[in-house]
Amino acid sequence: MSTEPSPYQAPWNFLGLGEREASPDRARAWVLPIPYEATTSYGAGTREGPAAILSASRQVELFDPEFDAEPALRYGVHTLPALGLAHGSPEAMVSAIANAVQAIFSGRPRPELLAVLGGEHTVSAGVARGLAAALPGDRLVAVQVDAHADLRDAYEGSPFSHACAARRILDVCPVFQLAIRNLSAEEAAFRRTCTRVKTVFAESAAAPDGAFLKDLAAFVRGKTVFLTIDLDGLDPSIMPAVGTPEPGGISWERMLEIARVVCREAASVPAFDVVELAPIPGFRAPDFLAAKLVYKLMSYALPA
Amino acid sequence: MSTEPSPYQAPWNFLGLGEREASPDRARAWVLPIPYEATTSYGAGTREGPAAILSASRQVELFDPEFDAEPALRYGVHTLPALGLAHGSPEAMVSAIANAVQAIFSGRPRPELLAVLGGEHTVSAGVARGLAAALPGDRLVAVQVDAHADLRDAYEGSPFSHACAARRILDVCPVFQLAIRNLSAEEAAFRRTCTRVKTVFAESAAAPDGAFLKDLAAFVRGKTVFLTIDLDGLDPSIMPAVGTPEPGGISWERMLEIARVVCREAASVPAFDVVELAPIPGFRAPDFLAAKLVYKLMSYALPA
Amino acid sequence: MSTEPSPYQAPWNFLGLGEREASPDRARAWVLPIPYEATTSYGAGTREGPAAILSASRQVELFDPEFDAEPALRYGVHTLPALGLAHGSPEAMVSAIANAVQAIFSGRPRPELLAVLGGEHTVSAGVARGLAAALPGDRLVAVQVDAHADLRDAYEGSPFSHACAARRILDVCPVFQLAIRNLSAEEAAFRRTCTRVKTVFAESAAAPDGAFLKDLAAFVRGKTVFLTIDLDGLDPSIMPAVGTPEPGGISWERMLEIARVVCREAASVPAFDVVELAPIPGFRAPDFLAAKLVYKLMSYALPA
Amino acid sequence: MSTEPSPYQAPWNFLGLGEREASPDRARAWVLPIPYEATTSYGAGTREGPAAILSASRQVELFDPEFDAEPALRYGVHTLPALGLAHGSPEAMVSAIANAVQAIFSGRPRPELLAVLGGEHTVSAGVARGLAAALPGDRLVAVQVDAHADLRDAYEGSPFSHACAARRILDVCPVFQLAIRNLSAEEAAFRRTCTRVKTVFAESAAAPDGAFLKDLAAFVRGKTVFLTIDLDGLDPSIMPAVGTPEPGGISWERMLEIARVVCREAASVPAFDVVELAPIPGFRAPDFLAAKLVYKLMSYALPA
Amino acid sequence: MSTEPSPYQAPWNFLGLGEREASPDRARAWVLPIPYEATTSYGAGTREGPAAILSASRQVELFDPEFDAEPALRYGVHTLPALGLAHGSPEAMVSAIANAVQAIFSGRPRPELLAVLGGEHTVSAGVARGLAAALPGDRLVAVQVDAHADLRDAYEGSPFSHACAARRILDVCPVFQLAIRNLSAEEAAFRRTCTRVKTVFAESAAAPDGAFLKDLAAFVRGKTVFLTIDLDGLDPSIMPAVGTPEPGGISWERMLEIARVVCREAASVPAFDVVELAPIPGFRAPDFLAAKLVYKLMSYALPA
Amino acid sequence: MSTEPSPYQAPWNFLGLGEREASPDRARAWVLPIPYEATTSYGAGTREGPAAILSASRQVELFDPEFDAEPALRYGVHTLPALGLAHGSPEAMVSAIANAVQAIFSGRPRPELLAVLGGEHTVSAGVARGLAAALPGDRLVAVQVDAHADLRDAYEGSPFSHACAARRILDVCPVFQLAIRNLSAEEAAFRRTCTRVKTVFAESAAAPDGAFLKDLAAFVRGKTVFLTIDLDGLDPSIMPAVGTPEPGGISWERMLEIARVVCREAASVPAFDVVELAPIPGFRAPDFLAAKLVYKLMSYALPA
Repeated sequence: MSTEPSPYQAPWNFLGLGEREASPDRARAWVLPIPYEATTSYGAGTREGPAAILSASRQVELFDPEFDAEPALRYGVHTLPALGLAHGSPEAMVSAIANAVQAIFSGRPRPELLAVLGGEHTVSAGVARGLAAALPGDRLVAVQVDAHADLRDAYEGSPFSHACAARRILDVCPVFQLAIRNLSAEEAAFRRTCTRVKTVFAESAAAPDGAFLKDLAAFVRGKTVFLTIDLDGLDPSIMPAVGTPEPGGISWERMLEIARVVCREAASVPAFDVVELAPIPGFRAPDFLAAKLVYKLMSYALPA
Repeated sequence: MSTEPSPYQAPWNFLGLGEREASPDRARAWVLPIPYEATTSYGAGTREGPAAILSASRQVELFDPEFDAEPALRYGVHTLPALGLAHGSPEAMVSAIANAVQAIFSGRPRPELLAVLGGEHTVSAGVARGLAAALPGDRLVAVQVDAHADLRDAYEGSPFSHACAARRILDVCPVFQLAIRNLSAEEAAFRRTCTRVKTVFAESAAAPDGAFLKDLAAFVRGKTVFLTIDLDGLDPSIMPAVGTPEPGGISWERMLEIARVVCREAASVPAFDVVELAPIPGFRAPDFLAAKLVYKLMSYALPA
Repeated sequence: MSTEPSPYQAPWNFLGLGEREASPDRARAWVLPIPYEATTSYGAGTREGPAAILSASRQVELFDPEFDAEPALRYGVHTLPALGLAHGSPEAMVSAIANAVQAIFSGRPRPELLAVLGGEHTVSAGVARGLAAALPGDRLVAVQVDAHADLRDAYEGSPFSHACAARRILDVCPVFQLAIRNLSAEEAAFRRTCTRVKTVFAESAAAPDGAFLKDLAAFVRGKTVFLTIDLDGLDPSIMPAVGTPEPGGISWERMLEIARVVCREAASVPAFDVVELAPIPGFRAPDFLAAKLVYKLMSYALPA
Repeated sequence: MSTEPSPYQAPWNFLGLGEREASPDRARAWVLPIPYEATTSYGAGTREGPAAILSASRQVELFDPEFDAEPALRYGVHTLPALGLAHGSPEAMVSAIANAVQAIFSGRPRPELLAVLGGEHTVSAGVARGLAAALPGDRLVAVQVDAHADLRDAYEGSPFSHACAARRILDVCPVFQLAIRNLSAEEAAFRRTCTRVKTVFAESAAAPDGAFLKDLAAFVRGKTVFLTIDLDGLDPSIMPAVGTPEPGGISWERMLEIARVVCREAASVPAFDVVELAPIPGFRAPDFLAAKLVYKLMSYALPA
Repeated sequence: MSTEPSPYQAPWNFLGLGEREASPDRARAWVLPIPYEATTSYGAGTREGPAAILSASRQVELFDPEFDAEPALRYGVHTLPALGLAHGSPEAMVSAIANAVQAIFSGRPRPELLAVLGGEHTVSAGVARGLAAALPGDRLVAVQVDAHADLRDAYEGSPFSHACAARRILDVCPVFQLAIRNLSAEEAAFRRTCTRVKTVFAESAAAPDGAFLKDLAAFVRGKTVFLTIDLDGLDPSIMPAVGTPEPGGISWERMLEIARVVCREAASVPAFDVVELAPIPGFRAPDFLAAKLVYKLMSYALPA
Repeated sequence: MSTEPSPYQAPWNFLGLGEREASPDRARAWVLPIPYEATTSYGAGTREGPAAILSASRQVELFDPEFDAEPALRYGVHTLPALGLAHGSPEAMVSAIANAVQAIFSGRPRPELLAVLGGEHTVSAGVARGLAAALPGDRLVAVQVDAHADLRDAYEGSPFSHACAARRILDVCPVFQLAIRNLSAEEAAFRRTCTRVKTVFAESAAAPDGAFLKDLAAFVRGKTVFLTIDLDGLDPSIMPAVGTPEPGGISWERMLEIARVVCREAASVPAFDVVELAPIPGFRAPDFLAAKLVYKLMSYALPA
């Protein structure tokens, strides 16, 4: 019987994996694209983010020198179709996301790790809510990498604006936020009084000594962690493809250090998201970095 | 007393008019930018439309050979700041627009003509509703230039999606739609049974004979007309900067013919909008065309 | 049992069809993406063409007013993964394509109509060769829409260069070429002496009377037709996204007329290709036109 | 002795001609790039125009079906280096251009035809002045294709602004201007009283009957003609790469008709320029059209 | 009486401030856009710089964690219309700028701090000259951040070329230049003999120890400082949107250190400019950085 | 006799040198553009690389502060026309390159240093082979800066794919590769067993201590070195214009350190190449950096 190789390329999925590694039964990591964008007021384009990450991921090499292995072949990755959009209101979309996430973690087969691709940061509120419902208990915490505190209680008429993402996650669990360098007077006042949020400003987060990593380790130790990465937390020199690219962000190496600490210290990391990629037509470096980051996060969260 | 010319350029307003011609007291035409975009799912960028039209308008020559005059100096144009955004839900934004339009037509001073710059087509639903409230009576009709019928009753969970714009205008007044070349099976069925909507497909709208212009004239004659122009009604060769640029649209010359018929036959044209411009970075021709179209429409609607 | 609608968007396929309409068993039309680009020397980017057409097709409305129906739901469309690339030599790739096409037409299930998405024009040589092998008999003819004659016997060291596409098709069957406005002295001499090729220059192809359509009808009548469309046959005003956008091409309406004549008069149209789309980042109109053209061609070739 | 073909591509010159055809001794047509841009206030980029035209010209096929020949091999084309820039003032640059043009026509060898590539329209004032000096006599006239009348006596403080190009040419010879659709009140008044300028507005210039062509023929008959083409005279659908792309311009076919009439009726056409190309990065169709237009003009002006 | 919030967005001004904070009577900082570009020969587009900075500034958060306050609300910022252009010659424009700057500092109300937005670097020559005239005395010095020494005495025929900016400032006051990594042999010779210019090359300016900051402090101590920032002084990784982006520039953090030293040690900083931003269409990070830099400079120069 | 300066700009060559410095007789460095691209499957555009480098080089200042001199005037640079393309197969092109390189080093005049501008990395295989043939002896070694190991024995059907570049160079001489951060499992296994290849991964290559530089010095000491630089070895923050911009590359300063070590320790550096620049339309910083790098490499390789 023939074992001739297929004349076709791999199907359209994260990393361009073959059918076996990409099947929901086999795969321990699932990817959920949510191309939702409704409340941004500047620098549109995050709805193109998930497709750009998937497209770029097909050029990412499976072998990773850090692990001296092809981790994706070990754990497998299943790519779901994009979630349908609900434009009745941002709140309706957040509910739809929460329901979808809860359903995914309640279904069979189901993933060990869910990687959500945004879309605007509003999607994280839905992911957090869905996680809390699917994984009840009091151990859920969130780690947020972001240029913006996103702690407003409402913005432009909606409590579910992208500018309120962290505030809505706080409704569900404590938040440790990193690389912040943009917040309003209202948010600055709020974070001083709210004991559930811990803010590491960009200057500290980017400092060579990485002193904050100890605090981060303590925060996540033994916890169930939802890691939410607004790509504008990274420095604009390597991640210009975001709505408001604030100078002074963290480097690629620091981003990986943070992820390693979180995945090493946490009891588990059942989900993360990578949001706010607004692809710049003709400029692929940010898409590629985002795809590689998603792969790295998977490999840290699902160790051998 | 000195009448030395100012060393400064004209302020930032439509056509770059001087203070006198741009003052609300003096100006018969007012421009209202509404950079709202929340329900589009492809080809983002309409939130940049109003700023691009204003920027391009500053390069439009005031003199118009068609009138052998500088019409804007005759009627004056006041540019309002952009309307604030309400992201609670598309319905909330439509209400906010309706309120703003009604307030404008109820205030003092107030314009004879309101030119709204979108933003996605959803804004037109608000404009129509505000007009109906401000100008009660049974004579309001709408003329829509568009590639899409926009007759869905709801789309992606919202009855106020951009794909429902004409359906929501129909809630307020009859609609004559032109240049249509994209509609769903549901919309095709609806328009057959709805007596309040008249559809001229693109093939007829672009045909050299212009036979439909008689029907259009009859429709608007003696009526109060709201003219809503989704720029994708134009052919993509001259208007590629839209979300879904359907081949087979109307030409610049035909667009002007339509506008002339409407403004000549209507009892009055108190408002029009030009929506769905999604500027392509580095490609200015569509922005410039949109700006010139707005100026032409003003001059037709406010004849000497 | 539940018939709840899926919370997910349609999978990644041509037109974004549901699983049933897109299954190979059910679908009469199959789409084969071939993102091959190896011999172009200017205006690179055709390797991005197939993905851009698939992406844009998801925004094309299924309902088509010309048919007053949703033709794709009638015939179904299955989208194959992209064909693997063979970079040993252009000849190796042409062979791989020919083999794939032959295998598709010999397999079970198999399509009535194969729509190939290029990639550079070289792919057409492979499609023609595969068709001739799969559908033996002497009735195969090709209709080529193109700005360039592509009749060189070799170019830059390869007889399988994109500039030789028609010459390689001639190895297999006669060719009727339309919209030509670029050919070399060598090609001009060749076409005068070769009785198997008929050239309609762009000036005639674009002339309002369409006199050439009779000749075209006679050429294809009762034949098995392979329709190969190099998008640069269209006018650059509507199709700038090609390597060498020659002024003076045909319009969208004329392109459809040609397709209607071919599909009406031919005995059958088992395959067509649409090649040489080189997407311009940020400029979607050409991608959308190409996607809509593919859908139109399917509906003409698979009449109700 | 060896006649082995060179392993290298043709050198960097107009049309990528070989050394023989491109030598100044042999070539009857010379190309002079003038990448000058200093007075434009919107839509910068004309300084990139000449390089873009030269680059695109290398993809233009030498064979022209209109002549059933390779005209460039008959007359030869020499490409000069770009003219040095003089930024002391626009007037200084105009003088430098005039001197260079006069020197070219007084030198040995010297061209029969000089094709100038702009740069902003200001360069045409220099070309006209240099021509008048080099070719004394009273038979010089200019034909201008342009969206803008360019008849201002001064603009933004300079009588040598791009907006004054035609006015400065009028200082030297009469002007027949075509495709005009943008002029100021001042210019409209001027052209009514100035007997040396004849204006055909865009509506007439684009009308199918081409009635104006008789007037044009009469104007140039027996004269020495300087043809100056501001590319914004063409319709933005085919020529968006200009500073202010005014809708309603002429087509490619009409542009060629105008050029044929001029070259057929004139006593001689010693020079033309093609100006105001402001290349759009990543969008090559306009560059290609401009290059092909320059080649066509050469072939018309230097008939067999 | 009603204090209902306005339904409109803030007007078009720097930071999008409300009417009160932006009024000339109230504001201690004034912004003067000068979109002048006439002498650049590569990488055009600085005329779009001021509009891009203003547009991006509307997304800058007023709260600044460095000050734990909203500094702009403390000092107020008035945005002037763009200065009119004088294209008679670069010298005429420099005079016009000098006159405008002098008039601003002599008027009532008048600013404590003038922030000029270029435009090409030539504008700085005008600002310096205007400052010297408005603020007589011998204490004026200039600090220049730049990749280029700009010490040529003339360039391309003009002593007021952008390449002569620092040389023209030297006509007025001593200059301390930082981050230089491009100079000609002529400039290298000049700076060795000219005692009024001090050059810190990029290698030193970017070195971690910042040893040069002491020299800088000594240079400005007790002086009236004009700070002129050519954005190409920054590293291209964070500031690619300049004409000639030389590798090896300074970081965002170093730029701020320099500004802090200058503002802390100087007797006063009545004016600064930020020039040479040539926005890249679709790529906003540089525009945003420039806007944030202008805001930072204001807050340093106008301490609480 | 007149020594009047030419009114024309320098001809189209590397650095825009005058005729004398650019003549093959005088110039010790020659530039060979090879715009070959045939086997890349993502991120096309390297065929535009050589033209972009040449264009940008004309803006590079001849004076270099590192040498306090204008090195190019000392050694001279001759720019060859681009090499003709052979699209019969990648192997045919590699042979053509090898033949051209060998011919250049065997001709009279001939260069001391050949700088090749790619094109895809496949060209390096040809350069290495040509060098080995032209400079027989056992002392040739290669130093490769690259993100990718390029050690595959074949890829997509060709042993001459860009992904096999280093493997093909290994056929000729040992290779020291730097900045690697992407390799396949197959390549990882190969490099462990192959004694002729030494890999310094990106983490080490970018580490501040530069410990690897000693190994590099030892590798090249006394050898004849071919330096091949795939620009994706640099960090994407400064070099995004490559096909697969992998995060974590080396800095501009480190790149220069490597080059200095190589040129200081080697017996000679007869050739280098700079490949894989895929220019991003409208984004010039990478082109400029590449041009400046080529100039730096020349000056290091041809010391005073």
